[in-house]
Amino acid sequence: MSAPQGKDAATVAGAWDRLSLNTATTKRWSLADAIQGAARAGIPAVGVWRDRVAEAGVATAASMINDAGLRVSSLCRGGFLTAADKGSISAAVHDNCAAIEEAAALGTRNLIMVVGGLPDGERNLGDVRARVSDRLGELVPVAVEHGIRLVLEALHPMYCADRAVLSTLAQALDVASPFPAHAVGVVIDTFHQWWDPALEQQIRRAANEDRIAAYQIADWLVPMAHDPLLSRTIMGDGVVDFACITRWMTEAGYQGDIEVEIFNADVWATDCNLILEKIKRRYAQLICPALA
Amino acid sequence: MSAPQGKDAATVAGAWDRLSLNTATTKRWSLADAIQGAARAGIPAVGVWRDRVAEAGVATAASMINDAGLRVSSLCRGGFLTAADKGSISAAVHDNCAAIEEAAALGTRNLIMVVGGLPDGERNLGDVRARVSDRLGELVPVAVEHGIRLVLEALHPMYCADRAVLSTLAQALDVASPFPAHAVGVVIDTFHQWWDPALEQQIRRAANEDRIAAYQIADWLVPMAHDPLLSRTIMGDGVVDFACITRWMTEAGYQGDIEVEIFNADVWATDCNLILEKIKRRYAQLICPALA
Repeated sequence: MSAPQGKDAATVAGAWDRLSLNTATTKRWSLADAIQGAARAGIPAVGVWRDRVAEAGVATAASMINDAGLRVSSLCRGGFLTAADKGSISAAVHDNCAAIEEAAALGTRNLIMVVGGLPDGERNLGDVRARVSDRLGELVPVAVEHGIRLVLEALHPMYCADRAVLSTLAQALDVASPFPAHAVGVVIDTFHQWWDPALEQQIRRAANEDRIAAYQIADWLVPMAHDPLLSRTIMGDGVVDFACITRWMTEAGYQGDIEVEIFNADVWATDCNLILEKIKRRYAQLICPALA
Repeated sequence: MSAPQGKDAATVAGAWDRLSLNTATTKRWSLADAIQGAARAGIPAVGVWRDRVAEAGVATAASMINDAGLRVSSLCRGGFLTAADKGSISAAVHDNCAAIEEAAALGTRNLIMVVGGLPDGERNLGDVRARVSDRLGELVPVAVEHGIRLVLEALHPMYCADRAVLSTLAQALDVASPFPAHAVGVVIDTFHQWWDPALEQQIRRAANEDRIAAYQIADWLVPMAHDPLLSRTIMGDGVVDFACITRWMTEAGYQGDIEVEIFNADVWATDCNLILEKIKRRYAQLICPALA
C-alpha cells in the first residue's frame, strides 16, 4: 500500500464530517434503513438515488433525512441526454427537470449527471456528444432557478458505448465551460478516473475553474467483475492509490463531501452494517491522512 | 451506419495493398495455415505474434512468409516493462532485445509494445509509468542498431491495472517524445482508442511528430464480452465509427498497413476462411472508402 499509515485519522480536523454513504452501496437497505444505518454509524451525509427516494416519496425522504440529523451530499442521477428524436429529447428534458426539483426538495445542490451512451445504431460520437451540450444548455436555466448544480460525471471509457459518452475529466470540463460554474460542475470519481494520465492536472484545472462539486470513491477490482458495472469495490480492496488522488483533491482546495459509492455483488451480499464498519476503517486508513 | 457506402472500394488506389491479417485473428491456424490463408485470400501482409513465430522458428517463419509473397506489417509484441526488481528488469530487457532481433529477422520495422500493468501490490501509477520510460531508454539503442521501431500501444484504460499503464494516444506520444521518431512510434488501435475525445487531435499530433507506425482495427462489442480481453470483434459488428477514424488517419497522411486484429471467442470458433471473407467484405465497405 502506498497510503500513508503513520497519522491518526482522528486528528485530521473535520475528516469525519465529510464522509457520505451513497445508498447504492447498501443496496439491500431501503432509504429508511440506509438513513438509520448511516446515523448509527456516525456518517453525517447520504448520497441518494432517485429510485430509493421515489419509494419513500420526496417530501417524506427529505423529512426522514433531516430528522435523522443527516444531509444529502448528492442526488443520483440525471442525464441520459443523447437521444436524437423529438419525443425522447422531450422526455429526457422533462425527467431532468423533475430530478432538479427533487434535488432542491432534498436540500442538496448536486445533481449527478450520467449523460448517456450511443443511441442504438448511432456511431458518430461527435454528433452524440454535441447533443449532450445542447440538452445541458436547455437544463441550465432550470437548474439555476432551483439553485441546483448539474454535476457532470466522466464515466470510465469502457462505458462510452452504453452509458456515458463523457469519458474524461478534461472532456467534462470542456463541456461545462460555456456555463456558469455555479450551474455546471464536475465530480471526481476514483473508479472512473484513476487511470487517467491527465488526472492530477485536470483536478487542478477543475479547482481553478471552480467546478469541483463532488468526490466519489470506490476501488478498481482486479481482475474485473464479469459484469463491468459491478467492478467497483471498497477502498483498499483494489488497486487505486487513494492517498495520491485524495492528496491532489486536498491540494486543489476541495473541502466537500466524500461519498462512498460501491456496486459489487459481494458487497451487496454482505450485512450492510459490516460494510459500513469496513468503509469507516478504510476511510480512516486510506483517505483521512490525505485530508490534512 | 455512418460509413459512406457510395464509393466503390475497388476504385481506391492501393487500398488492397494495405490490408494485413494479424495472426491472433485466426487463432486456430498455425503460422503456416495463416500465411497460406492470407495468400489465398489475396491479403498481402501479416502481423505475427511471437509465440506463433517461435513454433516455426524465426528463420523458417521468415522464409515461409517471403516464399508466399507476403510481408510482415508488425511483430506482436514486446513490452511488459513495469517490474521494479533487478531480476525482472533484466529479464524484461533481455526478452525485448530478443524480440527486436526477431522483428529484424522477419523483415518488419515495427515491434508493437504492450508496456505492462501495475506489478502486484503497487499502486503508484506515476512510479510505474516512469519505469516504462526508463526501460525504453535502455531499449532504444538496441532498436536503432537493428533498424526497428518500438511501437507504443496505448491500451484501453480498462487494462491499465493488469496489462498496460499506457492508456491514451496523448500519453504514448508524451512517452515517445524524448526519443527519435524512427526509433519510437505509436499505433492507433480503434478498439483501444475509439472513445477518446482527443483522438482526432492526437492523430494529427502523431502525424506532425512523424510517430504513426501502425493502424490496427477491431470493433467494440456491445455488450462487452465477459472476458474483457475477448471483446474485440470484426469491423461493423460493434459501435466503432471506422469511416470517421480512418478518414482522420488518411487526412493525417498515413499510408501504411491496416492490420485486422480480433480477439473473440465466437470469431475463433468460426472457420478461419469464412472469417477472412467477412473481414474483406467489411474492409471494402467500411475502411476502403475512407482511404481516398
